[in-house]
Amino acid sequence: MKNFDNKSKKIYGKLYLIPTPIAETEGDFLLPQDRAIVEKLKYFIVENPKTARKYLKLLNMAVPIQEVEMDILDEHTKDKYLFELIKPLKEGNDVGLMSEAGLPGIADPGSKIVRIAHASNIPVIPFVGPSSILLALMGSGLNGQAFKFNGYLPVDQIEREKRLITMENESRKGKYTQIFMETPYRNRHLFNSILKTCAPTTLLSLGIDLYGSNQLIKTAKVADWKNMQKVRIDKVPVIFILSGEK
Amino acid sequence: MKNFDNKSKKIYGKLYLIPTPIAETEGDFLLPQDRAIVEKLKYFIVENPKTARKYLKLLNMAVPIQEVEMDILDEHTKDKYLFELIKPLKEGNDVGLMSEAGLPGIADPGSKIVRIAHASNIPVIPFVGPSSILLALMGSGLNGQAFKFNGYLPVDQIEREKRLITMENESRKGKYTQIFMETPYRNRHLFNSILKTCAPTTLLSLGIDLYGSNQLIKTAKVADWKNMQKVRIDKVPVIFILSGEK
Repeated sequence: MKNFDNKSKKIYGKLYLIPTPIAETEGDFLLPQDRAIVEKLKYFIVENPKTARKYLKLLNMAVPIQEVEMDILDEHTKDKYLFELIKPLKEGNDVGLMSEAGLPGIADPGSKIVRIAHASNIPVIPFVGPSSILLALMGSGLNGQAFKFNGYLPVDQIEREKRLITMENESRKGKYTQIFMETPYRNRHLFNSILKTCAPTTLLSLGIDLYGSNQLIKTAKVADWKNMQKVRIDKVPVIFILSGEK
Repeated sequence: MKNFDNKSKKIYGKLYLIPTPIAETEGDFLLPQDRAIVEKLKYFIVENPKTARKYLKLLNMAVPIQEVEMDILDEHTKDKYLFELIKPLKEGNDVGLMSEAGLPGIADPGSKIVRIAHASNIPVIPFVGPSSILLALMGSGLNGQAFKFNGYLPVDQIEREKRLITMENESRKGKYTQIFMETPYRNRHLFNSILKTCAPTTLLSLGIDLYGSNQLIKTAKVADWKNMQKVRIDKVPVIFILSGEK
């Protein structure tokens, strides 16, 4: 019989999942009580040490940053190396996991180490932080009781527009909101595909540069978006949200 | 032509979407820079004035709480009254929107006022805060690049188990994670239905009492959950996450 609540004779460290900023802002990116925990950590697993150090410099780390131990977990990390990464945890040390931007483990290699932690009975503790997906959904006013995050759509225009039609139909039939994104320099292509393929009554919300200095969230019918002037979505992060209406 | 960036001759107030705690904790529930904005607000739209006042008491409100204006927006609010609610915004006052727990506008009547705000060119500003859905997803280690939040499953056992089979198939075929929930006193029924209907290799993650004093996140194969002792999910909030594996 396995033990449900991670209580074993050995005392393992905790794996803290530490959000990082999603935009260039001056403000805090952690809740004060979570920040207090992060400031005392000596071990980190990070996607990019340079940005991780930049974020840690914004905190009052108990140990000088150059003495903090940082292991790298990125898309090149081999699976067999993951067991090396959890060694400090098995020896009883708390470890912080940080990704390049936003919530670790949501859409980055960090999720692999989280799964290994679960398999090894290491407690996993996620912290509150900025998620552009949920900020955009809150701000859209669209249905948050049922929604799907689809990640990136196909790059090929024909494939992308086919996908949009399927998603719009699913949204209308299944009564759920569709969320998706694009690399910033292709936002305009995606936006044009939506205006071209979706019904005039379909609601489209754009969450632009969330938590950044040019943040703007706007929800309108596809028909109204066609008449809007100067939609500034080039080269900025945008979350697209779509709701097919009856 | 409509104006994309909400800039009109009239200066409207901003509608701030203010998260509230998801568990009985002592800690802060807002980032310091967002908290500083909330502390200066004089107008609120709230789902429940009693809990809203409780949360505001945890802040250093610039105006005594009894002098803060609070309008109610709940499931009984008639649509025609929504235009009354945005009057302070149209007169140039910033207004804070708070729901009963968690992120406003995600699964509560607040989303209606957000849509009206967009239609009236009132800027909508969401704040970072606790989302049990995303905390559970981060902590699960399961695929966060594509996921669906399904809300509540059917109460009827046969319907619920049919739905679980569909969701498991969709997850396997569409390569996305399924997230869902249940009212706390029915968690055990849902858990048993999952163990009964899902494949032994399917991964199930439970996010239990997130940000609460008994928080526990655990991911394991359905086969392993069957062997686990004392799974404590009765009468506590639980987020269920499921991933059908090949």
